[in-house]
Amino acid sequence: MQTQKIVVGIDIGGTNTEVGLITFEGNILQRGTMPTRGRGPNFEHYLNSLTDLIHSMLNKQNNIELCGIGIGAPNGNFHTGAIEFAPNLEWEGIVPICKLLSQRFQGIPIKLTNDANAAALGEMLFGAARGYTDFVTITLGTGVGSGIVSNGQLVYGHDGFAGEIGHTTVYPNGRLCGCGRYGCIEAYLSASGLVKTALELMVKYRTASVLGDIPPNKLQSKDIYEAAVSGDWLAQEVFRQAGETMGLKLADVVATLSPQAFFFVGGVTKAGDILLDPIRQSLERYVMPIFKNKVKILPSGLPGIDSAILGAGALVLNDIKLHNKPS
Amino acid sequence: MQTQKIVVGIDIGGTNTEVGLITFEGNILQRGTMPTRGRGPNFEHYLNSLTDLIHSMLNKQNNIELCGIGIGAPNGNFHTGAIEFAPNLEWEGIVPICKLLSQRFQGIPIKLTNDANAAALGEMLFGAARGYTDFVTITLGTGVGSGIVSNGQLVYGHDGFAGEIGHTTVYPNGRLCGCGRYGCIEAYLSASGLVKTALELMVKYRTASVLGDIPPNKLQSKDIYEAAVSGDWLAQEVFRQAGETMGLKLADVVATLSPQAFFFVGGVTKAGDILLDPIRQSLERYVMPIFKNKVKILPSGLPGIDSAILGAGALVLNDIKLHNKPS
Repeated sequence: MQTQKIVVGIDIGGTNTEVGLITFEGNILQRGTMPTRGRGPNFEHYLNSLTDLIHSMLNKQNNIELCGIGIGAPNGNFHTGAIEFAPNLEWEGIVPICKLLSQRFQGIPIKLTNDANAAALGEMLFGAARGYTDFVTITLGTGVGSGIVSNGQLVYGHDGFAGEIGHTTVYPNGRLCGCGRYGCIEAYLSASGLVKTALELMVKYRTASVLGDIPPNKLQSKDIYEAAVSGDWLAQEVFRQAGETMGLKLADVVATLSPQAFFFVGGVTKAGDILLDPIRQSLERYVMPIFKNKVKILPSGLPGIDSAILGAGALVLNDIKLHNKPS
Repeated sequence: MQTQKIVVGIDIGGTNTEVGLITFEGNILQRGTMPTRGRGPNFEHYLNSLTDLIHSMLNKQNNIELCGIGIGAPNGNFHTGAIEFAPNLEWEGIVPICKLLSQRFQGIPIKLTNDANAAALGEMLFGAARGYTDFVTITLGTGVGSGIVSNGQLVYGHDGFAGEIGHTTVYPNGRLCGCGRYGCIEAYLSASGLVKTALELMVKYRTASVLGDIPPNKLQSKDIYEAAVSGDWLAQEVFRQAGETMGLKLADVVATLSPQAFFFVGGVTKAGDILLDPIRQSLERYVMPIFKNKVKILPSGLPGIDSAILGAGALVLNDIKLHNKPS
């Protein structure tokens, strides 16, 4: 029986860490999960659990060859291989995860990037962006992230932190953002941004809305989506305004990078065309004439639950494929 | 005597076409110029004059080997090799200049891009961006252009028209721009944008200014610069506001692409630190905390008069160097 080459994809989220054994074709042979939190600020404790989990998964497989480990994590820096000052993780400062993990998996290439970049690579290798050389993935969830692929390469930038489209200004002097700046797109398109827009519309209009029955601290983007589907005008208007705002900003990205498409991933994008249609209309309204009707707004082609680990696996797989490419 | 390898750099401007014979080290052996306009809409007439000029220049040199021709032109598309719908040139529609010129210079590689991209390549090969892998040139003149270099490569985008940072929105519902959209950075930072800001400030404040002695149709950015140098408060305020606006937009570009530096070229940038200092201050005020004090705002390292032809030459030279690079 022939040995099957695989990579490990690790997605470190604020709550859970998901691990997958992934074939070179993007099939997930096996999944594992463990809580990210609960072991305190000492990163070694977390790393022990993670190493144990990976080994236990590998031991269940026969005839496999581990070819690499890819990691997606908040504030993961591709250039340094370290998680740097991630606000939502227990470990403080700079965590050199690639270096520390490679002491436990010697000789295995290990790569790190942030979750949004990993999502872009996953989309390119296994998802709806196959065959695309110029595209951007936009991650809408707790925050707004982005991964940029230009000329077939992920854009990391000089210090590894490129792709922070979520923290570009869409409305100068607008809403305060979690990053401390004002008017970032994240303050409008994140899950909590949509909630704020709902409250803003309750202030502005006199329309009755079922969203007014939910305390603001409990109101979630899922509630807004469900109300919109049920025909609640105010909830629908939240998505129209979100689309307007996103399209205005994407027109900037089109002028800057001229991508073929934007792919939307993350919890908020479960709203589907209720969100994507207003984005499409707004983009066409605001984009420069030379780019009109050229740029697609599409949902991710990867199942939500697998997207993150496939993306992490794609990170190291992309490197392996690049090196093996005949030149 | 050894043969010297050279390239021809051609800068097609709205008024004049400049031609240079350029060594691989970036020395200009010889310069030539001809008017771009005056031969009517038939591009062949222009091409005849251009071909004659190049041949006459080449004939004056001994022991040279022509290795390529690079062209910078408004709306020049790298992917198609055509000047496409340039609003300020006499030829309409799509002009396949690379194809037509290669019939006259058979076997010689000929490359085209727009003037802003050419400026970025010129800066990288011969100017202040030598050794930089991630940077952006911003061209401030009649319009606002940009050339983006990411990971050592010029970003052309899917259709060849990336780098239109001049037409990204800085103030939604702001000034009408020449492109038909509202609030583009070009409507504020171009030469005529500065004039508009001067008029706006005359409306807003009661301060006396020498700029009020010049009819608006005659007021030029040079006048504003000279008044600012002479201590005119309103003229100085024009540059402070221009810096504020530019810095706000550059903070977006930093979050998106994480460049090491911005290089400023073009007529308006002759204002030097009167313009660049307010941009620096504004960028630091608006940029995400992780990027603070990391990104430089610098003037071009190329003499203005040579920048465009060196950039055009760099376009084809960069290709030659990439192909000859040991892999």
